[in-house]
Amino acid sequence: MVGTLPVSPLAPASFPKLPAIDGVRFAAVSAGVRYKGRTDVMLALLAPGTSVAGVFTRSATRAAPVLDCQAKLGGDASEGAAILVNSGNANAFTGKHGLDSVAQITAAVASAAGIPQERVFTASTGVIGEKLPHDRIVAKLDELVAGLSPDAAETAARAIMTTDTFPKGATADVEIDGKVVRIAGFAKGSGMIAPDMATMLVYIFTDAVIGQGPLQTMLSRLTDKTFNCITVDSDTSTSDSLILAATGASGVSAEGDAGFEEALHGVMLNLAHQVVRDGEGATKFVEFCVTGAASDADARTHALSMANSPLVKTAIAGEDPNWGRIVMAVGKSGAAADRDTLSIRFGDLLVAENGWVSPSYSEEAAAAYMKQQDLVVSVDLGIGDGTARIWTCDLTHGYIDINADYRS
Amino acid sequence: MVGTLPVSPLAPASFPKLPAIDGVRFAAVSAGVRYKGRTDVMLALLAPGTSVAGVFTRSATRAAPVLDCQAKLGGDASEGAAILVNSGNANAFTGKHGLDSVAQITAAVASAAGIPQERVFTASTGVIGEKLPHDRIVAKLDELVAGLSPDAAETAARAIMTTDTFPKGATADVEIDGKVVRIAGFAKGSGMIAPDMATMLVYIFTDAVIGQGPLQTMLSRLTDKTFNCITVDSDTSTSDSLILAATGASGVSAEGDAGFEEALHGVMLNLAHQVVRDGEGATKFVEFCVTGAASDADARTHALSMANSPLVKTAIAGEDPNWGRIVMAVGKSGAAADRDTLSIRFGDLLVAENGWVSPSYSEEAAAAYMKQQDLVVSVDLGIGDGTARIWTCDLTHGYIDINADYRS
Repeated sequence: MVGTLPVSPLAPASFPKLPAIDGVRFAAVSAGVRYKGRTDVMLALLAPGTSVAGVFTRSATRAAPVLDCQAKLGGDASEGAAILVNSGNANAFTGKHGLDSVAQITAAVASAAGIPQERVFTASTGVIGEKLPHDRIVAKLDELVAGLSPDAAETAARAIMTTDTFPKGATADVEIDGKVVRIAGFAKGSGMIAPDMATMLVYIFTDAVIGQGPLQTMLSRLTDKTFNCITVDSDTSTSDSLILAATGASGVSAEGDAGFEEALHGVMLNLAHQVVRDGEGATKFVEFCVTGAASDADARTHALSMANSPLVKTAIAGEDPNWGRIVMAVGKSGAAADRDTLSIRFGDLLVAENGWVSPSYSEEAAAAYMKQQDLVVSVDLGIGDGTARIWTCDLTHGYIDINADYRS
Repeated sequence: MVGTLPVSPLAPASFPKLPAIDGVRFAAVSAGVRYKGRTDVMLALLAPGTSVAGVFTRSATRAAPVLDCQAKLGGDASEGAAILVNSGNANAFTGKHGLDSVAQITAAVASAAGIPQERVFTASTGVIGEKLPHDRIVAKLDELVAGLSPDAAETAARAIMTTDTFPKGATADVEIDGKVVRIAGFAKGSGMIAPDMATMLVYIFTDAVIGQGPLQTMLSRLTDKTFNCITVDSDTSTSDSLILAATGASGVSAEGDAGFEEALHGVMLNLAHQVVRDGEGATKFVEFCVTGAASDADARTHALSMANSPLVKTAIAGEDPNWGRIVMAVGKSGAAADRDTLSIRFGDLLVAENGWVSPSYSEEAAAAYMKQQDLVVSVDLGIGDGTARIWTCDLTHGYIDINADYRS
């Protein structure tokens, strides 16, 4: 599959210039795990003192590297850390072989990089149910360590792609007490899941000083507003992993700094949106904005019901202002709704209110709006103060092509 | 749309011969509600003493006829009843106009047929958000009543089709105490929902003697094992309605008769399967059979997670034995699962067990199995006694064609 798909029409014009983050070095190699003629393993080495926080898939069938990472969070940060990621094989549903592979790889990274094995975090993305040929990765570790560079973030970002049609990066600078701290990160993902169970991986780095406890708390809080608010096809992978590393090399504490959290939120949201923009077969980027629900949880339920509805997603693909399907998706969600108090807007256009189509509604204006590439569908329930925003893409022939017509 | 779609490859060879049910007469007319050149209104007139039970959509945005029917269940059966259904317009999300239309139609049917208005049950299926032109229906009532016949069930079944590619009927005879009672019914539906919010309607008739209370209890119990176990696209309509009428004309009581309940179960399951076989774009009929779950509810959650997963459904469309996606769908469902105790079978082929692919697994044999039109995917969780079966179809380009490329 890799390399055969055209770049998503929703892709940014170019990969952003990611600044070096003091205390972080990257390298990537071609280990031949599965793909030919491209890089497929990346290593990030993190300086002693780096705090590491992580968020992982809640799947009950989590892959071996995910289980290993979760067990290692919160360990001693004094001797540095490493992140090793391979593409081409997810090392998921591989029984006891899976944990063996993780043990082999993390031991080898620890030895080659001179850090404790319990500070080596790994991820694998690609085909599932096949034994990971970890020897091919272990054989490349000296080359990886020798090639480490603070300026190789884009190279690393490209090495972890599977069915992604473009690499995804984002960065922000934050001024704290007159000094600048930097945030840079990258992601892979093309839907919650791609043809071979490849899935979303995100790595974000900062030179700010933040302890592991506060870092984890902030990461979890922001994940709920960013990566947990996107959906391509409602399917959740066995391997989703998000790691945030703070090297502290700037010497500037960002703990409790609202500006830092805002900047990190922006980087995470940017990457999350790029994952949606590379959604399999996507031609539209859609925000579902729900207000007036009985609670924030209810608002989220309504927004996800719309964002995951095949009928809503196909209507958007067809540029059809089919607000009846919005009514259907709200009605089926299970969260509180009153047919006669809900209102629906496409962009600024009021479509429905008071249980019926709005007197001001113009089918022509709505159809013209639906031709835009980026869309906002807003629903106000009219019964409370709950709000939520969810981002998704449309459901097109391209999705069927990728997932049915091509064999994985 | 209507008439432009090819008949589903999963359709039965022919519509079954439905026997006359003593106490039930049908008629259908062309009222021009929306479609041209076909029948679009059907009337069923039920003899005095007929018990009526019903099950309806749980959508929070239920259509006006659904609300009206729900209010009328359990009323006095002594003076008979009527069922009037139109296609072409769903009378859903039509504000106060919706209930006005229902009131006009039910009053006119009561007058024309000589039964109480509170025993007139209606349903509307088709486009939503447009006022129902109820005058066109009212104008045809005398013609409908004049045309009533006990042998017109198929005619009635055809009048309520929207994007259905074939009419759906089923029948059974049951012997009780040496006498025969009959069950016959028909359904429309092409997915939970069709391009214009048309959706599933089911009408089943019997000449058995059953009081309204026991009839409702039995109908609800059997619905949980039949119509509530099918899904095409996870979308729930505003109009789903199922009515079971027992005229009692045979003079044979079927209350508490296990054979009768088994036969009715068979008729309902047959109709439910036919709805799936007419699923939009369907090329495969799939049973997901879950055993060994922590509870029946958990088993159902797992089965629905597989049946509604776009990645599972597209893999089936592509005849790809992608068991990794089955693992994914079980993992994401939220119900209890243990990666290392679950086993997966395609038909009789053991695919995965003990947390990895089975030693006996043959990709060639699995790929050959996936080419069949009717498939069974079985998952045993290995942790309890919970079981469930869910029936669905695949997700194909045909679904996108119907719901995105065509404008509704």
